[in-house]
Amino acid sequence: MIVLFTDFGLAGPYTGQMKAVLHCEAPGIPVIDLFADAPAGDARSSAYLLAAYAAWFPSDSVFLAVVDPGVGGERAALVVEADGRRFVGPDNGLLEIVMRRASAVRAWQIAWRPTALSASFHGRDLFAPVAARLAAGAPAPDALRPFVPERRADWPDDLPRIVYVDHFGNAMSGLRAARLPAAARLRIANRELARARTFCDVPAGKPFWYENSNGLAEIAVNGGHAAATLGISIGTEIEISA
Amino acid sequence: MIVLFTDFGLAGPYTGQMKAVLHCEAPGIPVIDLFADAPAGDARSSAYLLAAYAAWFPSDSVFLAVVDPGVGGERAALVVEADGRRFVGPDNGLLEIVMRRASAVRAWQIAWRPTALSASFHGRDLFAPVAARLAAGAPAPDALRPFVPERRADWPDDLPRIVYVDHFGNAMSGLRAARLPAAARLRIANRELARARTFCDVPAGKPFWYENSNGLAEIAVNGGHAAATLGISIGTEIEISA
Amino acid sequence: MIVLFTDFGLAGPYTGQMKAVLHCEAPGIPVIDLFADAPAGDARSSAYLLAAYAAWFPSDSVFLAVVDPGVGGERAALVVEADGRRFVGPDNGLLEIVMRRASAVRAWQIAWRPTALSASFHGRDLFAPVAARLAAGAPAPDALRPFVPERRADWPDDLPRIVYVDHFGNAMSGLRAARLPAAARLRIANRELARARTFCDVPAGKPFWYENSNGLAEIAVNGGHAAATLGISIGTEIEISA
Repeated sequence: MIVLFTDFGLAGPYTGQMKAVLHCEAPGIPVIDLFADAPAGDARSSAYLLAAYAAWFPSDSVFLAVVDPGVGGERAALVVEADGRRFVGPDNGLLEIVMRRASAVRAWQIAWRPTALSASFHGRDLFAPVAARLAAGAPAPDALRPFVPERRADWPDDLPRIVYVDHFGNAMSGLRAARLPAAARLRIANRELARARTFCDVPAGKPFWYENSNGLAEIAVNGGHAAATLGISIGTEIEISA
Repeated sequence: MIVLFTDFGLAGPYTGQMKAVLHCEAPGIPVIDLFADAPAGDARSSAYLLAAYAAWFPSDSVFLAVVDPGVGGERAALVVEADGRRFVGPDNGLLEIVMRRASAVRAWQIAWRPTALSASFHGRDLFAPVAARLAAGAPAPDALRPFVPERRADWPDDLPRIVYVDHFGNAMSGLRAARLPAAARLRIANRELARARTFCDVPAGKPFWYENSNGLAEIAVNGGHAAATLGISIGTEIEISA
Repeated sequence: MIVLFTDFGLAGPYTGQMKAVLHCEAPGIPVIDLFADAPAGDARSSAYLLAAYAAWFPSDSVFLAVVDPGVGGERAALVVEADGRRFVGPDNGLLEIVMRRASAVRAWQIAWRPTALSASFHGRDLFAPVAARLAAGAPAPDALRPFVPERRADWPDDLPRIVYVDHFGNAMSGLRAARLPAAARLRIANRELARARTFCDVPAGKPFWYENSNGLAEIAVNGGHAAATLGISIGTEIEISA
C-alpha cells in the first residue's frame, strides 16, 4: 500500500491531485491517508511523528512523505529504504528519524525530473510518480543515485516536545514511552503529570500521560481537551522526571 | 461495502490506520467514510444518527461504528445483525436504536482478542479486524458469543434533540419526519418553526424545518447558517406542537 | 476516474453517500476527492476554480460537480462534454467556464429521474448515478436531451477576484497567470504585489503573487498566511497593473 503523510491539510485540491497520479501510475494499489495535517512546514516535529506511525505499517508499504517548506529550492529529493519500508520525500530532515531507528538503511537522490515540474507542487509532480513506481514494483529508475543524507547530529533520538494535537485535544510528544522509566513523570506547562494506562483509569478532568496506540507518550485529560486545558501546542517543551 | 461511522475527527491518523487494517484483511472491498465527526463521545446522539443513515445503505453493508469513550474499560464489544445489515462496535448504546428499529435482530459479544490490543484504539485493533472478516465473507469467528445487550428503556424511540450540525449549519434532530404530523411545528431555542419541502420554498433568511434526505427532521435557514442564527448545537431540545 | 468537486464540506455524510452510489453503480472505478470545499453556494467563483483544475486531469475523467444552492428548484441538471472530459452538475453557471474554454462542447439536459429523489440531495440521488453510468462506459441514457445552456455574457473570461483560500492561507484568484503580462503587478487590499517564481525566491513575510501549480495567479506570503496577513477572502477584488 501507499501511505500519505503530508501537511497539505484536509481541504483543498492537493491530496486529491496526488491520488489521481497514484491511481494512474499504480492502478489498484490501495492508498491510505495517514496524516494530511502533519505539523505544517515543520520537518523536525513531523520526523518524530512519521517514525512512530510508519513502524506500525506492513514492511512492504511505500510512504509518500511531504512536509516541504523548501519546495522549488535547492533541497534534494530522496528515496529511503529503512528495514524494508520505502519512503519518498524531501531531504530536509523529514526522514531523519526513520533512518536513524532502522537497522538497515539505503538512500538515493532522485535525479529524474518529470516533463512538467511545477515550482510549488513537487508532491504531485515529482514525489508521487516515484512512489507509484516503487509501489507498483517497477525497477528503481536509473535516475536514483545512491546518496548519503546529512545526519542532523543536533536532533535527539527522542524529542521532548509536543509534535501533534489531535481532534480530541490529546497531545502527542516525540518521546517513545518504552524509553521512559515506568514511573516517569512528565513536566509540561508548569504541571507534572503521572502515567496512566488509559483514559478510564483516571478521574474525569484530570490530566495524565499514557503510551498511545503507536508507542508515543501522549498527554490527555479524561473527558476533556488536554491541549486547551493545559495551554499546550506543537513545540511545547516537556521535562522528564523519574 | 464497509461503512465507517466514528467520532475520530477528520484529521489525524486514526481513520487511516483503521482503513489500512481493512485493506489488509478485506482487500478489494470498498470502504465508505460516512461520518468521521459523529457527536464526540456521545453514544446516545450518535445512535439516532447512525440508525437514520444506516437504513439508506445496501443490506449487505458492514458498519464499523466507533463512538467509544469507555475504550479500554469494561464495556463489551458487539456484533449486531439488524435486518441483514451487520454492525461492529462497543456495547454502550451506540447500536441501540438500530436494533430497536429492526424486525430481525441477532447480537453477539466479541470474545476474540488480537495478539496486540492497545488500551486506547480498539477501533483499529479489535473492531476493524472483525468488521473486515465479516465483510470478506469469512465465517463468524468462534469467538462470537450470542449476547443480549441491555435495553435502554429510558431512551425514546425518537430523540427530540439536535444530534448533528453540518458544514452548512443545518441542524439534524433525532426525530423521524415521517412520525411527525404533517403540519407539526417544532419549537427550539424560543422559536417556533413551520415545515417546508426544501430550501428554495422558503424566503432567504427564514428558519424552517424539513425532512432531510435521510428522513430526519432538520432545522435550516435558506441561504443562512441555522445553528449560528438560532444558537443551537448538539443536545439542544425540541418541542413538537401540532 | 470520477472526480468530485463539491461544496459539501469535509465533514458529514454527504460525500460518503455519493461515493456509496458511485461504488455500487461503477464498481472498481477510482473516485478522487478534488474539492469538497469549493466556495459554498457560490457557483461563479466555483466555475473558475473548476475550469483551472479540471484541465489537469486525464481527458477521460468524469467530473461530478455539485455547488447547487438551488437544489430542489427549477434549475436543469446537465451533462457537458468539453474537449472529451465529461461533467455532471446543475445548470447554474458552475460549468460555464469549462464550456467557454473548450474547443469542442456538447451539452445535454438530464431528463431521467430516479425512483426516489430527495428534495435536498440531488448530488446523491440524481447526479451521482448519471456520473457513474458515464464513467462505467454505459451508453448515454435516452433521457439525456441535447440542450444549450444559457451563456452568462456578464461573466468575464478570467475573474479578477479571490476564488479560494487554502489551508496554508494562499489565496487563488480566478485569473490565469499565462494571460497576464510577465511583469504584471496585482493590486489587492491596498497592496501592490509583484510576481515571483515560488516561495523560496521571496524573503520570509513578504506578500507576492505567483503562478500556482494549476496555472492560476495566487497570492502568497513566504512562511506566512497570506489571507490573514492581507485580510482577503473569497470574493476580494484584484486590479491588474502592468
